[in-house]
Parts: sequence; C-alpha cells; structure tokens
Amino acid sequence: MILDGKKLQEKKLLILREKVLKLEKKLTLCVIQVGNDSASCVYVNQKKKMADFVGFNFKYIKLDEDITTSELLSIIEQENNDDEVSGIIVQMPLAKHIDAQLVQNKIKYYKDVDGLSDINVGRLVHNKKCLVSCTPRGILELLEEYNINLSDKHVVIVGRSNLVGKPLASLLLNKDATVTVCHSKTKNLADITSLADILIVAVGKKHFIDASMIKDNAIVIDVGINRENNKLYGDVDFDSVKQKASYITPVPGGVGPMTVVEIGYNLLLAYNLRSEVDE
Amino acid sequence: MILDGKKLQEKKLLILREKVLKLEKKLTLCVIQVGNDSASCVYVNQKKKMADFVGFNFKYIKLDEDITTSELLSIIEQENNDDEVSGIIVQMPLAKHIDAQLVQNKIKYYKDVDGLSDINVGRLVHNKKCLVSCTPRGILELLEEYNINLSDKHVVIVGRSNLVGKPLASLLLNKDATVTVCHSKTKNLADITSLADILIVAVGKKHFIDASMIKDNAIVIDVGINRENNKLYGDVDFDSVKQKASYITPVPGGVGPMTVVEIGYNLLLAYNLRSEVDE
Repeated sequence: MILDGKKLQEKKLLILREKVLKLEKKLTLCVIQVGNDSASCVYVNQKKKMADFVGFNFKYIKLDEDITTSELLSIIEQENNDDEVSGIIVQMPLAKHIDAQLVQNKIKYYKDVDGLSDINVGRLVHNKKCLVSCTPRGILELLEEYNINLSDKHVVIVGRSNLVGKPLASLLLNKDATVTVCHSKTKNLADITSLADILIVAVGKKHFIDASMIKDNAIVIDVGINRENNKLYGDVDFDSVKQKASYITPVPGGVGPMTVVEIGYNLLLAYNLRSEVDE
Repeated sequence: MILDGKKLQEKKLLILREKVLKLEKKLTLCVIQVGNDSASCVYVNQKKKMADFVGFNFKYIKLDEDITTSELLSIIEQENNDDEVSGIIVQMPLAKHIDAQLVQNKIKYYKDVDGLSDINVGRLVHNKKCLVSCTPRGILELLEEYNINLSDKHVVIVGRSNLVGKPLASLLLNKDATVTVCHSKTKNLADITSLADILIVAVGKKHFIDASMIKDNAIVIDVGINRENNKLYGDVDFDSVKQKASYITPVPGGVGPMTVVEIGYNLLLAYNLRSEVDE
C-alpha cells in the first residue's frame, strides 16, 4: 500500500488555510537567501507558493553572495525583533565563508521554523514544546494519516543527519517507539534493517535498500531524492521492495511533498509559541 | 572480566589533580542545594570531597526549602555573572513548587557542569563542544580505559532518561556506534537486548536483566543503583550474567564511582569553554 504524500499534502494545505483564515492577524514568513544557488531558488519558490496559497505574508530578503557573517547576523537580529515576523528561514547551504551554525543559532528559537537551532533540538530531546525540522514532522504526519501506531514498533533509521535522522530519532522516541539509528559506519547493516517494523532511509544513495534488506510486511519510508538523467530516484529500490513491504512511500510523491506543508504548520506553531515565551 | 570503576576513579582523580595544579587560577565549583533531602546531602558531600582532593574551591550555597523559583533564578544569575565561578550545579531533585526546567536552563551553558540544559543537549546532538551529563561521560571513559572500540558495535541502551539514556545515545552516535534505545514501552525487549554487542541498562529495577537476555560475550554496563535492606543491587543480575558476558560492571564499584570524577573533568572543560565563548 502506497503512503501518498502528495494527496496528504493537498489535504493538509486546505486544513492549514482554514486555520490561518481564522487568525486575527496575517502571519509573516521571512525567508533569507544568500547568493543564487539554483536549487535554493527552487526551494524558495516552493515556500512562496505555499505561503501564497495558505495566506501568509512572504517576506523575501535576497542578499549578495559576498555578505559577511556579521552582516547576516545583524539582519537576522532585525527580523528577530520584528513582531510582524513569526518565522525566519535562512536558506541553506550558505557560502563557505559564512558560519552557518552561528547563523542558525542566531534565530530566536520560537521563530526558527526549520527547527535546526541547538536550543530547539535540546527542547525536542527533552520533549518540550518546540519547532521541529520539517521532514521528520512530515514523516510522522504521514504515518499518522495511515493510522500506523508507533508505540509498539521497532523503527530503524538509516542516516544520522542533523536535518532528518537525529531529530527523527528524538521525535519517535517521544512517541514511544523503540529506535535504532544506523549510518555509514554500521557493520552488517542488513542484519539490522531486516529487524525493522518501520524502516526509514535517508542516505542520499539511489536504491541503497533492496528487498533482501527488509522483513516481510515492513513499513518503508524513503527520504532520498537522487537525480539521475533528469529523473528522481529514492534510496529504496521501490519496485522490488514494494512486493515485500506492507506500506511504502514512492519517490517522488512520498515524503517530499510533506516537507513544505510542515513549514506552514511550523509557522503557525511559531506564532503560538511566541505568545507563551516571556522575554 | 570486570570493568573496575573504582580503580579508574582513583587513577583519573590523580590525573585531574595534576592538570589542575598546572592552572594559573584555582577553579570554583558552585553547588546550590535547596532543602535537606538526605540523598542530596550525601551527593553534595561526595562533590565536596572530590573538589578538596583535586584542588577546586567549593562554594556551597544552602537555601531554604520554601525559596521561590524567581529567588532561585536570581541567585543563579549572580553565579552566572561571577567570573570566579567556573561551574554551577543545582542539586536535584528540587521541591515541587520550583520549576526545575527553568532553573536548569538558567545556568549559562558553559557553566552547566551537569550538562542538562537544553542548549548543551542540542550542542551534544550536533556534536559541538559542550558539557555532557556525567554518568554517560563516565561510561564512555570506562569503555575507553579497557580499549573497547565503539565504531564497530551495536549498542543497546535500556532506559531513556534525560540524565542517562538520551545523552548516552547522542554521545555513542557521535563516536560512530550503531545505537538502539529501548524503554518501558518496548515490546519483546529480550529480542533486542540479545542483539547487543554492548548492553547498557539504566532502568532502576533490581536484576531487571538476566543471562537469557544477552548474547554470548556481550559487554554489559549496569547503571542501576537499587537499595534493598541496606544493600546495593544493580539492574543486572550480576552472578548469572557474568558467566556469559565478556566484560561487566559490578554494582557498587562500576559506573557509580565514575560519575563524581566526571564532574571534576566537566569543571575543567567548563573553564576552557568559557574562554572560547564570546559574549
């Protein structure tokens, strides 16, 4: 059975638009882009489209490639202090001369809709209200939509990135799943992946997981987006694995579409979180 | 083979004393205790003894049980701002009317020698310089002392506390171990514990793990300290498990003695970290 991210995206966008309509004020999403990375331009456009559809203001700050870290930090400081701005995203990757970690941590945690700052990650580990990285959130929404319970499951995550693997592990643990994190240094990977009730793969390698590596009726979530000759491939060999899995996400149309919706939901969360923070 | 925490404690205390002797200034550990909890008094004394032995100043602030959260926060603020103080510990547990999370997060992260603040935990996840909870640090030191490599191991942790299980999982992942976290909601626990190359148990239940739950030659770390009729018992049934394990920690004399040494090492780390933080 297919876990259809595209369909859920459409449904969740409509629900979000309803919620946003009822707010007293129009929320603003601020996106800061440095330079002209072509993939970044695509992602910024996706966010703008989402914002327009849902009914957010979209404040786009485009900066020269050669901006310094301290100039960028002071721009973030302005947006931190602007009560009209509910959420801030600095589009990654940044040019190498900029300290990306310093930039990410400059954003006030209750405006950090990418959920990548140290303090949001610490709050996530401690299971407090926080903003969580959008792809892991999207994966949880997708599982929930198909009524897949987590508390009785052994979830195996392949990949330990700050963007996906690590926050996902914390989220799942908070939902009472039993969680294993594997990565490039894991020995006998197939022995571990074949134990998974739910296998989540985020390694960025085309067809890294095949049917021999999963157990019968496993639920398989593919976070990979690998481009080859203008076609997209997942980290999972969909055609072989789908014969054995009970549920599987396609690529494209699985996890990907969920990510941009979750930015919208995070903006709403950020607005509500702000009202609870006493500064 | 026994992983001897008592012996390593003595060795590491001497090494730390040497390091501290070479510093230009005498470092101060500030311990704040609220009320008269008898276990807390024991732990405070252990810290004082360690500090005296190593050559730290021990600044002990004893407060009335009925102090308010905001009064306690302003005392922490003073110690945050006191350049003579390198590390601050607020002895837990606090009385119920005090917001322990707020208190823990009030301590500047570079003085938070217990490593429990959100920001330290987030920095740990992101594998940045930070102060890490002492028991997990002690466990890693113990494994390192016996030349046990982590990068080729599957480590299973039973217990997901903020003090032990969660920071331990992050530390181990940063050391390239493959990590599984189990807990009270895990189904078929023995199926998972018996996969572990290294099994670490921190659940607080006497003899929770027996020999049937581990694989041959596993390395078993017992974090439990359970008191019964004035005797201490671990979470692991030592007598049966030692027949099957390749290495095992005794209780007492295993992980416990390491924890207090690590407070000392964390104070030294805190002092060095302070000099790198630009505020």
